[in-house]
Amino acid sequence: MNETLVTVVGNVATRPEFRKTPTGVPVARFRLATTARRWDRERGGWSDGHTSFYTVWAWRQLGENVVASVGVGEPLLVQGRLRVREEERDGQRWISADVDAIACGHDLTRGTSAFRRLSAARP
Amino acid sequence: MNETLVTVVGNVATRPEFRKTPTGVPVARFRLATTARRWDRERGGWSDGHTSFYTVWAWRQLGENVVASVGVGEPLLVQGRLRVREEERDGQRWISADVDAIACGHDLTRGTSAFRRLSAARP
Amino acid sequence: MNETLVTVVGNVATRPEFRKTPTGVPVARFRLATTARRWDRERGGWSDGHTSFYTVWAWRQLGENVVASVGVGEPLLVQGRLRVREEERDGQRWISADVDAIACGHDLTRGTSAFRRLSAARP
Amino acid sequence: MNETLVTVVGNVATRPEFRKTPTGVPVARFRLATTARRWDRERGGWSDGHTSFYTVWAWRQLGENVVASVGVGEPLLVQGRLRVREEERDGQRWISADVDAIACGHDLTRGTSAFRRLSAARP
Repeated sequence: MNETLVTVVGNVATRPEFRKTPTGVPVARFRLATTARRWDRERGGWSDGHTSFYTVWAWRQLGENVVASVGVGEPLLVQGRLRVREEERDGQRWISADVDAIACGHDLTRGTSAFRRLSAARP
Repeated sequence: MNETLVTVVGNVATRPEFRKTPTGVPVARFRLATTARRWDRERGGWSDGHTSFYTVWAWRQLGENVVASVGVGEPLLVQGRLRVREEERDGQRWISADVDAIACGHDLTRGTSAFRRLSAARP
Repeated sequence: MNETLVTVVGNVATRPEFRKTPTGVPVARFRLATTARRWDRERGGWSDGHTSFYTVWAWRQLGENVVASVGVGEPLLVQGRLRVREEERDGQRWISADVDAIACGHDLTRGTSAFRRLSAARP
Repeated sequence: MNETLVTVVGNVATRPEFRKTPTGVPVARFRLATTARRWDRERGGWSDGHTSFYTVWAWRQLGENVVASVGVGEPLLVQGRLRVREEERDGQRWISADVDAIACGHDLTRGTSAFRRLSAARP
């Protein structure tokens, strides 16, 4: 309830880093950049708008598959729960927009992909 | 294209401020807080999660109606375009999560509302 | 998981009907019509596109507030879980697009609203 | 404006069919099935809910890439514009829930994918 679901379509800006939490849960983290494109009525063409950056977290099996599949610069769509997170680091206030990924995949508007299903069953 | 649409359900955290841009476009701005609620499997009950804050921008007629209708603490749902914006202010890096509202209204899960339609036609 | 969340912005097409399920759960049901508007590059103006109809279900307190607040023709935004439901009725196959509302409210792009919060605590 | 954006996460239920419209625009069409999974508080486990079917339309380059990449049974996430379409066919009323895809990709929660970017630039 009250979760903010979002789908971000963009490009991978940093190589997905894989690690395990202290309790042993695997997670991959990367930055995703998305640039709005707008129809410019006056020029009669598309132009680039603002670029937003998100920190994407992919947990467990999704995290392992992201690390095995995704490289910098590749186009991705990510659906997940959005959180705006604020922290203090070295005396500086720091805000980031985080997406806890529910599902994600290479965007087929930009190319083709070959899929290989995991053998193990998952919920 | 590549716009990130989001619907945020939360509570108004600051009084909507109304002003006009240098070119005369009316806009209202306010902060919206949303707290995720999760089902706690162990306790068998709901508990509060993380609170995210958004800066909402309501333009033109929507902005005027927001100022005429919305007060601090009221529950709202806002659909809009999400931007993560970064700026430098007084030597500090500053990031905010902005929502350019497309539509918004008082959340009827929390109470009732009496609506009055504007007489003028709008696109 | 795998729930399809949707936010529909449209107009109420039928008067919300209130009833109780056999187990006593209150629910309001109404039809919501939404018409896409597109920027026509050739004409340089907006034009009406296709109209979609949804059946909205509002449960419990939300249902009671909808019945107390919402009338035919009023503009509404509804966030909820989308289901495409198929049934057999009088030998005819019948499909409907249902939205189980999570939150909804009068759309302030079209007018103003006066909100009254319920006194009761919430889950 | 007033477009209903949706992200559907599901499985491909029919082989994508490729054709050209009378004006020569390439398009791929397929059915996508999505089954909600819910946490069953009483049993303490996940259970399958309702299955919804969507007709997905992928236009132009996206359509060509879908046909080259996607097979029956594969997991996909699709972001697009939702339309509930009603037509009369052989004297029967027929309703379908259509998604005009904006972006789509293989869901990495279920396996890995190898991406190959198209050489040509696209808006």
